[in-house]
Amino acid sequence: MEPVKVGLLGLGTVGGGTARVLQRNFDEIARRAGREIRIVHAAARDLPPGQIPEGAEGIPITEDAFEVVNNPDVDIVVELIGGYSPARELVMRAIANDKHVVTANKALIALYGNEIFSAAQEQGVMVAFEAAVAGGIPIIKAIREGLAANRIEWIAGIINGTGNFILTEMRDKGRSFGDVLAEAQALGYAEADPTFDVEGVDAAHKLTILAAIAFGIPLKYDRCYAEGISRISPEDVSYAQEFGYRIKHLGITRRTGSGIELRVHPTLIPQKRLIANVNGVMNAVLVKGDAVGPTLYYGAGAGSEPTASAVVADIIDVARALTSDPENRVPHLAFQPGSLADLPILSMEDVETSYYLRMNAADRPGVLAEVTGIFGKLGISIEAMKQKQPAEDETTVPIVLLTHKVAERQMNEALARIEALDAVSGPVVRIRMESLG
Amino acid sequence: MEPVKVGLLGLGTVGGGTARVLQRNFDEIARRAGREIRIVHAAARDLPPGQIPEGAEGIPITEDAFEVVNNPDVDIVVELIGGYSPARELVMRAIANDKHVVTANKALIALYGNEIFSAAQEQGVMVAFEAAVAGGIPIIKAIREGLAANRIEWIAGIINGTGNFILTEMRDKGRSFGDVLAEAQALGYAEADPTFDVEGVDAAHKLTILAAIAFGIPLKYDRCYAEGISRISPEDVSYAQEFGYRIKHLGITRRTGSGIELRVHPTLIPQKRLIANVNGVMNAVLVKGDAVGPTLYYGAGAGSEPTASAVVADIIDVARALTSDPENRVPHLAFQPGSLADLPILSMEDVETSYYLRMNAADRPGVLAEVTGIFGKLGISIEAMKQKQPAEDETTVPIVLLTHKVAERQMNEALARIEALDAVSGPVVRIRMESLG
Repeated sequence: MEPVKVGLLGLGTVGGGTARVLQRNFDEIARRAGREIRIVHAAARDLPPGQIPEGAEGIPITEDAFEVVNNPDVDIVVELIGGYSPARELVMRAIANDKHVVTANKALIALYGNEIFSAAQEQGVMVAFEAAVAGGIPIIKAIREGLAANRIEWIAGIINGTGNFILTEMRDKGRSFGDVLAEAQALGYAEADPTFDVEGVDAAHKLTILAAIAFGIPLKYDRCYAEGISRISPEDVSYAQEFGYRIKHLGITRRTGSGIELRVHPTLIPQKRLIANVNGVMNAVLVKGDAVGPTLYYGAGAGSEPTASAVVADIIDVARALTSDPENRVPHLAFQPGSLADLPILSMEDVETSYYLRMNAADRPGVLAEVTGIFGKLGISIEAMKQKQPAEDETTVPIVLLTHKVAERQMNEALARIEALDAVSGPVVRIRMESLG
Repeated sequence: MEPVKVGLLGLGTVGGGTARVLQRNFDEIARRAGREIRIVHAAARDLPPGQIPEGAEGIPITEDAFEVVNNPDVDIVVELIGGYSPARELVMRAIANDKHVVTANKALIALYGNEIFSAAQEQGVMVAFEAAVAGGIPIIKAIREGLAANRIEWIAGIINGTGNFILTEMRDKGRSFGDVLAEAQALGYAEADPTFDVEGVDAAHKLTILAAIAFGIPLKYDRCYAEGISRISPEDVSYAQEFGYRIKHLGITRRTGSGIELRVHPTLIPQKRLIANVNGVMNAVLVKGDAVGPTLYYGAGAGSEPTASAVVADIIDVARALTSDPENRVPHLAFQPGSLADLPILSMEDVETSYYLRMNAADRPGVLAEVTGIFGKLGISIEAMKQKQPAEDETTVPIVLLTHKVAERQMNEALARIEALDAVSGPVVRIRMESLG
């Protein structure tokens, strides 16, 4: 089958990430999509000479994005320039030229989506925009397809990473808004003009899109209320905490009897809620459906490769939808049947993890040395240890240990030797540990 | 366009939920799917006479499921009987009869999926199984489509609600495994024979499916290691906590240089991780992709309507894939363009929320009465209040209040009156609150 030919507009943070991911995972993506995905033409301005991004080597690069959009060889135009103009004109031209479009441009979709989708529908092409909301989290797909059985009741999301980073730092370190904002700008999280992030404009763009797909309404950015976080003080953060709450900058949209709520503002939420524990630059979207109840989607809401992850997923989706014969549907096991790999499954003895261990040992000197000696000989290192107090009438004490990573085979051997010690009674309790970092 | 005709096998918890959701959200689903979805034939055994589940009224119901599978009028067979036999024979017959299949049966897919998918591929029909893993969470779709750009590195999931309920109770209340299990059985969370839940068999079924779609390998249930939670003691739960960890029953699958790890066992994880805070019967799956980084998916992993949510999403997906012309693709805004609704967006004045309020008031008797008097007159009730200590050299004290729900219009009026008081200096800080419950 013919490769899918992509024209890439923009080779900046997200464009560069998209080229890199398409190249690095070229085989894996072809195994999933059932065909190869190739960038055949790219547009970038002010690219320093000789600074071709990884993955874009050998691809013709033009300064005039309209050349890409007018290239008859391109099947899918991927718009990663951002902003309103010329992004809007480029997308409309691509549609008129009968090309499918993938975009990460939330401002464009929130303001001009109605016009864009209407042109696309008339022309019979697709416009995909997963990357426009919450970066790498597949939230558009989750709501539009995964929860398609539900009447959506409400959505509440942390959908601006910079704002969440600032609020997290204010809470964790008692710092002021201005102080953290300056750091975020230095770290490159916030733009030099931070208005879009901290005044809620960016979140309002994204919330407008979420509301449309949740409730089946047109995009109504001009009706979205947006209030920023610049007036939140350290006292408020601390008082909220005293009451058991955290302050998060939420986008909230809700169906009520009289209409749709569509609002972005700082919000106190109970600290026991999972979403209250989403910290730093991470995003999360909580969706309440009438059948499924609450579901939450968490991940990186911005950044080069997280956003590229969503862009490439959209390219694959469009490629799959171009035909829907059995060879091109979403494969049952995600990869095309002829492309399954017969990787071996490891035996547990070959798996390496850290361990929590608990044993009962005689309450006399030298026992700990015997136990740690066995670990030492087998190359198992100990991360932490506690010897608990013996209960009254007990001649043994519980010893609790955390180890560093070791193959299960080694641990089996160590535990066999420890259980054989006179000073240790009964079996050693062993629970594996994962840092999930 | 013709309705999609569904044959439903099973009218128990999940089958009944599916009939109910399809009926209740009939219009909303048709707006999304672009056509009506109708149950035309159902099979159920031992249905008490006159006990037709909601949504199945007027549908012919047979005791012989093969009648449904052989009904030439049925487009999609939905298998919600569970177990290996006759589910396996019914699904294979449905495929041979050229029908698409939707199933929630994880045991069937984990053990016989390779054979089932191969037959389906040959016949050119689809077999969808979103409901087989993590109930209503669209995790199959997220991994298979939403993260299709990624090389998946590992997955760690809480994918058995009963086990998580037991561990949560053990931690929160210091109870023993046996004690909580008995309660779970009484509450109907755990089966009379709890082996599948507490010994990790059910989780191993689900993990086998996740590993296949993550890594592009065949289903290998017989290679999955499963260890249960029955030997976890209250001491271990409490010691783990002392070290900053929680014990969760995780399914873990990981790509390593030498093969795939595939294992279900109790696991200590740092309590600061979001997944460590997934409590009770809820499920969550953490997926690490090379481009997107970690993403997490959280929701109800079982139950009538959460599972039905996934079943119906699959039916809609299959319906959409039957043709992929522009009228039948996933619509841009989730609903068909002709089906968008022009619901009004509420003004913020009409939105009701609770509020956090902070004001600086003169440190003298009677001020609090003035403030609360204003709230009382406007029908705003106070949930909690704290009067802070005045700072040295200060003649005002901060008063912090939480209110119950009230329309923003009322609150604006109250704050205008309070700010006009002589005893209150400066503006009142106001942050909205949401319980997200």
